[in-house]
Amino acid sequence: MTLPTQPLGFAVTVAAPFENALSAVTDALKQEGFGILNTIDIRATFKEKLGVDFRKYAILGVCNPGLAHQALTADSEAGLLLPCTITVEEIDGGGSLVRIANPEAMLRAGQFDAAAVMRTVATEASARLRRVAEAVGEAARDPTGTGRTGR
Amino acid sequence: MTLPTQPLGFAVTVAAPFENALSAVTDALKQEGFGILNTIDIRATFKEKLGVDFRKYAILGVCNPGLAHQALTADSEAGLLLPCTITVEEIDGGGSLVRIANPEAMLRAGQFDAAAVMRTVATEASARLRRVAEAVGEAARDPTGTGRTGR
Repeated sequence: MTLPTQPLGFAVTVAAPFENALSAVTDALKQEGFGILNTIDIRATFKEKLGVDFRKYAILGVCNPGLAHQALTADSEAGLLLPCTITVEEIDGGGSLVRIANPEAMLRAGQFDAAAVMRTVATEASARLRRVAEAVGEAARDPTGTGRTGR
Repeated sequence: MTLPTQPLGFAVTVAAPFENALSAVTDALKQEGFGILNTIDIRATFKEKLGVDFRKYAILGVCNPGLAHQALTADSEAGLLLPCTITVEEIDGGGSLVRIANPEAMLRAGQFDAAAVMRTVATEASARLRRVAEAVGEAARDPTGTGRTGR
């Protein structure tokens, strides 16, 4: 696979099933000071609203309150990039794919008056979320070692 | 004020107080087929987690199921840009500021394999959310006509 030149975030493929991957993400986030503010069950939403089947797919809105406060105090428009987003989905073969939006990548979407502060906050958030991705890869690694962290 | 060359979204300043602005946003979203999946009360979150005071500030996660399904079917990474984000905050003088992330702007954060589909979905979502911004400006416009839509 050719990696895109502008990846949106970190991706971790694990052998663990969907529910276990979700647990691993929750635990790893806590270690880095992030709480899960909300969870969207895409499979249930599509079934209810559209009547279509979709694989297990969750979108988590996560937030580190201290970093969010720094960003929103510097520029209230920063709220358009909050909360940070993580997706967890089942993949063929029983494993799961976890994606974590990289705040440094999200900054490319717009320009902020308080650009320096936003960069500093994004760099810190990015470092923490990268460690979350690595921890999920470790925690959910199966005995055969097929867990891998990419991007 | 100099408008940034890469605005993240649409902004509407209205004379209506926070709660009325939130209602106007909810109604306008419904007209364009968007539901509010979740609402983050930033003021309450910062008070609880950090013990600091902050103005009334809400972050809404909104979604048009049909457009989300198109995007996620084309590229599962699209979930990192979902749901679409809207912020509502009180401003000095009793009015409110509503910001709506422009999906076309959010696409700048990364590159997608299914770039053409993503652009098509983002263009449609953007047109709908621009109409939401315009409707909020109209609905919440006070008798003195100080509501204005910008960006």
